[in-house]
Amino acid sequence: MGVDPGLRTTGYAVLDVSTGRARLLEAGVVRSRAETLPERVKDIYEGVAEVVAAFKPDAMALEQLYSLYERPETAILMGHARGAIMLAAAQTGIPVVSYAATKIKKTMTGNGRAPKEQIQRAVQLELRLPRLPEPPDVADAIAVAFCHFTEARLTQRSSANAAFSQLYASLPKRPDLPIWTQASQKR
Amino acid sequence: MGVDPGLRTTGYAVLDVSTGRARLLEAGVVRSRAETLPERVKDIYEGVAEVVAAFKPDAMALEQLYSLYERPETAILMGHARGAIMLAAAQTGIPVVSYAATKIKKTMTGNGRAPKEQIQRAVQLELRLPRLPEPPDVADAIAVAFCHFTEARLTQRSSANAAFSQLYASLPKRPDLPIWTQASQKR
Repeated sequence: MGVDPGLRTTGYAVLDVSTGRARLLEAGVVRSRAETLPERVKDIYEGVAEVVAAFKPDAMALEQLYSLYERPETAILMGHARGAIMLAAAQTGIPVVSYAATKIKKTMTGNGRAPKEQIQRAVQLELRLPRLPEPPDVADAIAVAFCHFTEARLTQRSSANAAFSQLYASLPKRPDLPIWTQASQKR
Repeated sequence: MGVDPGLRTTGYAVLDVSTGRARLLEAGVVRSRAETLPERVKDIYEGVAEVVAAFKPDAMALEQLYSLYERPETAILMGHARGAIMLAAAQTGIPVVSYAATKIKKTMTGNGRAPKEQIQRAVQLELRLPRLPEPPDVADAIAVAFCHFTEARLTQRSSANAAFSQLYASLPKRPDLPIWTQASQKR
């Protein structure tokens, strides 16, 4: 599950990756028109918690927040929304992973500074969507989920490699023979 | 109820102000030793929600967060804790009020830049506590609750004044007589 936190519009997306490819199960936005920050945070929390309960995802991926934004006040306010979103994950025991905006953009388009429209087009292409994902918050939520899918796949590969190395290390040592000889002997 | 949000130690304090004076009902800290941010946010939320459920306070007072901190990253992280704390209030329909740190310090000590120890001593004195409130997070939570008590009392006074002004405005106008003449005629 990917979430793009916002105090008015929070995008979310749920991917099915069980086949080894990413398929979009559901995406949408949680909107809040409440007038106070606590009410907005509550609306966001409830909307996200509903999606978490419905899909029971394996992980929640979020964009990292940076203090180097043009407006640090915005980053602090967004932190409030992000805290409530994380809570929805932590309450159901789902791990939360964060990715830098540049990392997400680079994964989707190859360009860490790609504009919003390019992200939307890349998301449409990668997930074979009939339409451009709108609003951009939805595209961003799909993008961060997809970024985690890609990273998790890489990690799985490297842990598969690690498992192989472990297996090999546990084999009876025959220091007189290099490994490729062992392999050829088995055939 | 006053809360001093922190990712390790969150101070809280509940005041009884029903007599027109502030009396400390309970104060303490919610600690989290969790290793991930989502787990910490969850611990803080659960601890604060427990106090809210136990005391059903009329309002929750928090310190405002500023982006002009030395470390804006800290302010952003604190925003996560603050969002979860606000959520606990919003879920039970309690209004959340924020006060600037300088305002709280000035209310307690007369000095907007008072050091922590001075706040602790002022809190002890004002609430007639047998000991210095420790850790400082507890003193800060009591201070923000007390600041709201003082402000709410002022607002009550000014709304009493406003109610009087409204009452006066609704009286039959006698433009030929100034108000003090009306008053003297009544005696």
